[in-house]
Amino acid sequence: MTQWKNLDTLASFGELAKVQKVNLVEAMSGQNGADRVKKYSVPMAEGLTYNYAAKQVDDQVIDALEKLAAEAELSDKFAELYNGAVINTGENRLVLHHLTRGQLGDTVTADGVDKRAFYVEQQQRIADFANKVHSGEITNAAGEKFTTVVQIGIGGSDLGPRAMYLALENWAKKNNTFKMEAKFISNVDPDDAAAVLASVDVAHSIFVLVSKSGTTLETLTNESFVKDALAKAGLDASRHMIAVTSETSPLAKSDDYLAAFFMDDYIGGRYSSTSAVGGAVLSLAFGPEVFAAFLDGAAAEDKLSANANVRENPAMLDALIGVYERNILGYPATAVLPYSQALSRFPAHLQQADMESNGKSVNRFGEPVDYVTGPVLFGEPGTNGQHSFYQLLHQGTDIVPLQFIGFKNSQIGTDVVIQDSTSQQKLCANVAAQIVAFACGKADDNRNKNFEGGRPSSIIIGDQLNPQALGALLAHFENKIMFQGFLWNVNSFDQEGVQLGKVLAKRVLAHETDGALKEFSDLLNI
Amino acid sequence: MTQWKNLDTLASFGELAKVQKVNLVEAMSGQNGADRVKKYSVPMAEGLTYNYAAKQVDDQVIDALEKLAAEAELSDKFAELYNGAVINTGENRLVLHHLTRGQLGDTVTADGVDKRAFYVEQQQRIADFANKVHSGEITNAAGEKFTTVVQIGIGGSDLGPRAMYLALENWAKKNNTFKMEAKFISNVDPDDAAAVLASVDVAHSIFVLVSKSGTTLETLTNESFVKDALAKAGLDASRHMIAVTSETSPLAKSDDYLAAFFMDDYIGGRYSSTSAVGGAVLSLAFGPEVFAAFLDGAAAEDKLSANANVRENPAMLDALIGVYERNILGYPATAVLPYSQALSRFPAHLQQADMESNGKSVNRFGEPVDYVTGPVLFGEPGTNGQHSFYQLLHQGTDIVPLQFIGFKNSQIGTDVVIQDSTSQQKLCANVAAQIVAFACGKADDNRNKNFEGGRPSSIIIGDQLNPQALGALLAHFENKIMFQGFLWNVNSFDQEGVQLGKVLAKRVLAHETDGALKEFSDLLNI
Repeated sequence: MTQWKNLDTLASFGELAKVQKVNLVEAMSGQNGADRVKKYSVPMAEGLTYNYAAKQVDDQVIDALEKLAAEAELSDKFAELYNGAVINTGENRLVLHHLTRGQLGDTVTADGVDKRAFYVEQQQRIADFANKVHSGEITNAAGEKFTTVVQIGIGGSDLGPRAMYLALENWAKKNNTFKMEAKFISNVDPDDAAAVLASVDVAHSIFVLVSKSGTTLETLTNESFVKDALAKAGLDASRHMIAVTSETSPLAKSDDYLAAFFMDDYIGGRYSSTSAVGGAVLSLAFGPEVFAAFLDGAAAEDKLSANANVRENPAMLDALIGVYERNILGYPATAVLPYSQALSRFPAHLQQADMESNGKSVNRFGEPVDYVTGPVLFGEPGTNGQHSFYQLLHQGTDIVPLQFIGFKNSQIGTDVVIQDSTSQQKLCANVAAQIVAFACGKADDNRNKNFEGGRPSSIIIGDQLNPQALGALLAHFENKIMFQGFLWNVNSFDQEGVQLGKVLAKRVLAHETDGALKEFSDLLNI
Repeated sequence: MTQWKNLDTLASFGELAKVQKVNLVEAMSGQNGADRVKKYSVPMAEGLTYNYAAKQVDDQVIDALEKLAAEAELSDKFAELYNGAVINTGENRLVLHHLTRGQLGDTVTADGVDKRAFYVEQQQRIADFANKVHSGEITNAAGEKFTTVVQIGIGGSDLGPRAMYLALENWAKKNNTFKMEAKFISNVDPDDAAAVLASVDVAHSIFVLVSKSGTTLETLTNESFVKDALAKAGLDASRHMIAVTSETSPLAKSDDYLAAFFMDDYIGGRYSSTSAVGGAVLSLAFGPEVFAAFLDGAAAEDKLSANANVRENPAMLDALIGVYERNILGYPATAVLPYSQALSRFPAHLQQADMESNGKSVNRFGEPVDYVTGPVLFGEPGTNGQHSFYQLLHQGTDIVPLQFIGFKNSQIGTDVVIQDSTSQQKLCANVAAQIVAFACGKADDNRNKNFEGGRPSSIIIGDQLNPQALGALLAHFENKIMFQGFLWNVNSFDQEGVQLGKVLAKRVLAHETDGALKEFSDLLNI
């Protein structure tokens, strides 16, 4: 059994603080810099590479991080997790999202079943259903094919699947696997559902209601919205809706749905893109084969994350460097900057995955920690961001570590040559340029045009954003977050911080308020 | 003439640091809290209200901020700006975006013309053009009406207009002023242009090329993309494109465009939504009357910002409180959380406006400052964010000040009653609940379920997000950023931090690289 200890009680953490800091400007200049780019590079799955040459580390720092990884027993903890230990102690639950895409260790049995078999069974059921929808075996009441799938869910049931859909939409169209357009309804704001419903042909739409508990307020409310719209169109809602939920939820056996597909309590919402939550909408949109390829990419990356050798484990390395930046170098935020318009909502998904997992002030035993944990995470695609918030990243008073993502090839392949280069080359040239600009800066006598440099970044480089690469990318970040949770000794798999707001909102709706809450309720006309 | 001094040289800043800090949990609990909600409220324009009861301030702090405002001469500096002083010293330019929506002070003459008259003339020209497009007087070569407008621009030519379009799309549809769908092409990623072009009917699309200089790489590249697509469809590009640019740019007098509308060097990209940059696309999409109403809202809010009484000037108050949070309380980031799906991209626009304006390390004289300036700004709409990163906001180790925005009424008006409340009521109940949850927290013996509270927020409340309210909202934040720039003594109107990346990217494309830059270029196959 591993020992769960606070970061600041580890001898190796004390040692890490003493290691000479790297001068990034020096390190990344001249031949030094070229050598580092070749050296500080680790293969990921599916042809991706994690390059950390422009991080504020060197062999001494990495050695110290390696010792920290060993003392924190990161590999052993991951093994306990994928072998079925109760890692989510707060909720007394196993953490099994890795099992949705592969079997890394022992057979895990829970609720009396082999969980890997259970997840595979759900994938198979979804694949069969999706194939029948695509072939026209399952249709609307008029016998017409469905053309659109609309996901109704919020948080993890929305951000991840939506980001993955956008990431692969153009790829699927280009590769002739695009089956149906997908739309998403999430917010309890009535204008969200109303606008989406106005934009689709409800008679040819299939709605996926996603709620693990079957009790999420926003989702059930939006289900009613959809049922109203179907009724107004003279349609039988039960011919247009499927559910993704847990087997014990009220939605599981209801006649209100064409079919129900299952997840369970061992898959957190923010880790559910590879479960039935992502599986239903993505299999309907792109075909089950595309979803299967996405899972394969994630599984391959998971295998690399299980490697105990830090230097060959990109997620672990990324996690360790992040903790070094946060707890030793003192950087308060981090930005994710994909040079890929298809990844436009990937940062929003990571914002949830990261901030909801590790934005905690108590350790896994409920004791306050004396160090900072999860940072603020934000991001937008490049090159757009270059014309926006990069000003602060380059010349602001705070240093914000950066995570770039870039691909050699576009998804669609349509391109133009302007000034002797394609758009794709311009895109790649920009990301290469930014890494060096942030790291090395450029002295200028006009201080307003001066760049201090010393701003660390890493980059994940791939050939093309395809389903496998996307799966690997997602698993990399999920596993990075997990390792950081181990280092900070927090439970990355609960989210008690979302509860108080829910309780107070119910009180407002029941008009059981006083003090400031009553005043604000009055101001908002509730 | 006003004196431009660093924040830390002001006596009142030293005094501010000495004022007793507010215990927000105590302040916002019980009758105290109710009293604060009534008291700490300022009217904005167009029926909006800025409420700062849940900020970490009290009368003593506000008194000290009032002295700071006076010593920093915030009102006088704003007056100098709108009366035509060279506030953008780095680029030796006037700062005139306020003139696009009203005349706050003296007539401002530049380039030999009355600039207010110039901006009004452009609005009028755009209105005439848009009316002719809508009436069918201006059509494609086949004599058919245009149905779609596609903006080609990046940064300020993209984020602001896009956010405003999304903010008013449903309102316009509901109020029968919706004329044409708008789409946006921004990224140099070829998949961006290719995907947008595949989604529109190019034969019935009018493209708005937006580039002040007429030289922005991304925009010119995407123009070629569009021209290729038009040519492939057998269409004459010059019948489908208009330009928004400066009068001196190569685009201004070109036969390649149906028409050209003008901005100038006194309107920064991130402040250009109320200029021709926003005017063309929004007037085409919603009609010139809607754009005019948007400008009216901004003008009305600008007037309030010119009030020297801090307690009656919401933008100035917001700016002062923000500097107090950043420089005295030490909070490193801030989040903007609109409870309105229509404002889904408003935080991304503010991210640019704020971080590009005040993410600076030198003062307006080019001397390094010894204090932190602009914070990281991020945000997503509520209630979505509640199921995502709010965990960290509630229970993370860092305190992140919050800016909520809420409206009593939805835009579309379609709603459902579930459990005795409408979705709109649920939405409003949630934002009210969150303010109190963040401020007051809730003690729990289980520390994992404990909420410390003490997390400050303010809220802007309106009746409905309509064009006037949106204008007021935008102007509020623009002016807040301006006042913060005055306080930090930085030039909020240049962006030298974006230059180095451009220079290095050109070098990569010319294959004039060495060291790390060459290695990264090779890795990315350039």
